[in-house]
Amino acid sequence: MSLDITTISDVDDPRLAPYRDIKERDLVGREHHFIAEGKVVLSVLLRSKRFEAQSLLVAAAKLLGLMPVLDATKPTCPIYCVPQKIMDDIAGFNVHRGILGIGERVSTPTLDEFLAGLPEKALVPVLCGISNHDNMGSIFRNAAAFAADGIIIDKTCCDPLYRKAIRVSVGAALKVPYTQGEDIKTILAALEKANFRIYSLSPAASNYLKDAEVAKRTALVFGTEGEGLPNFVLKDTETLRIPIAYDFDSLNVATATGLALEHFADFDKLN
Amino acid sequence: MSLDITTISDVDDPRLAPYRDIKERDLVGREHHFIAEGKVVLSVLLRSKRFEAQSLLVAAAKLLGLMPVLDATKPTCPIYCVPQKIMDDIAGFNVHRGILGIGERVSTPTLDEFLAGLPEKALVPVLCGISNHDNMGSIFRNAAAFAADGIIIDKTCCDPLYRKAIRVSVGAALKVPYTQGEDIKTILAALEKANFRIYSLSPAASNYLKDAEVAKRTALVFGTEGEGLPNFVLKDTETLRIPIAYDFDSLNVATATGLALEHFADFDKLN
Repeated sequence: MSLDITTISDVDDPRLAPYRDIKERDLVGREHHFIAEGKVVLSVLLRSKRFEAQSLLVAAAKLLGLMPVLDATKPTCPIYCVPQKIMDDIAGFNVHRGILGIGERVSTPTLDEFLAGLPEKALVPVLCGISNHDNMGSIFRNAAAFAADGIIIDKTCCDPLYRKAIRVSVGAALKVPYTQGEDIKTILAALEKANFRIYSLSPAASNYLKDAEVAKRTALVFGTEGEGLPNFVLKDTETLRIPIAYDFDSLNVATATGLALEHFADFDKLN
Repeated sequence: MSLDITTISDVDDPRLAPYRDIKERDLVGREHHFIAEGKVVLSVLLRSKRFEAQSLLVAAAKLLGLMPVLDATKPTCPIYCVPQKIMDDIAGFNVHRGILGIGERVSTPTLDEFLAGLPEKALVPVLCGISNHDNMGSIFRNAAAFAADGIIIDKTCCDPLYRKAIRVSVGAALKVPYTQGEDIKTILAALEKANFRIYSLSPAASNYLKDAEVAKRTALVFGTEGEGLPNFVLKDTETLRIPIAYDFDSLNVATATGLALEHFADFDKLN
């Protein structure tokens, strides 16, 4: 089986259109596609059963380094090979990793479908109002690292398939299953029905994270650093806090997910 | 006592020169100054005993919101107030926080001075080869959150007073004492002499972080995510690891500092 590699030297070649000005287009959203950047993320995309690569764009000097990944995954999509200069001109910034791919979005499962697909023993972070793509990416990375079974993202959160979120997640955004779009009230009700013990992380809690009991099915609700979680969430769930220095404001929310997921992680799934 | 507020409407006013093209200048370094961005960071700068603000640049619409901080800290430096458009033109990007300040760098203590200034009971992260400003900023934030007594930064690390590192640290880069510039061999030798128990975090370690004994004086060595720590560091220190999922590559180094610092933190200093 051979790879479909095409050398392109014309910056106006229409096959490169999906890669044009990707920095700007991130800001306005891209309905049906997402951009994967760099070798590690591309490797996750090419191995994914959920997502499919539509094409790859590789700077000539990076092709050799990518060959082991291509050999292992044997993508059938076109691979466009261009000089670095053309890549930078098309993308609209210096793509120093020299490797890009266009992935096709698939519709995320509904909340009910997502919950129905979870194992009997499950650990699920629930994100409420996370609007920063760095944090979103880091949270996916932590969820993958601590073997969470999936992520529930409320409708006020940002898109985990934004280019930067995928990059910061080192591909975990393409790996960890998630559902997105319901409001937090609906999510809490569905979790309760699905027999989850629901904890919320909040600096205002009186119980410590480290003393929290690990349930068979655990959901962990995280809010933004500024406003925190809505009061009804704190009222309707068991709140936990991570003690920090008296004279310091707050922990980064992604770091908080790392600490909380590590506490609740199923040790049998870790190396 | 009154505040020295001047309205400037000329984009070429020489008093605004230090703020010109700050994005570009970050890349080439700024020998004697650093840029503080946003209300929270500015507030830390204005309260700092180690650093001094040389001037502030505030978008007109943000002045009112900054007044409580100015009232509380009573800075004597000039405060330049400009329309948002002029601020963006001068800075070279959209400064959506609308608040900037120039701080004056002070020389960091030598390694020996730094160690001599530590309390008898101490927790000190040691950074080796951390070159990413996001990670540097997050590590300072975690160090502040878990009441570390200071940070030792080896000479292969990036600058914690880079604009983005300060921003990501939410001001902790201006708060947590640090020393920077020695090589890691010299650092380890000095720590040993100062009676530190030295742990290194590494995925290759056989002992778990969560089982590690908390010593009176603990140093925690962290390396880059890619290459990890040099072999001699792993050989000369007690290595610890954080178990993660079998099928996932690695934890972000800043998240790892969060987990490790939380384990070793002095609970009496936390809220």
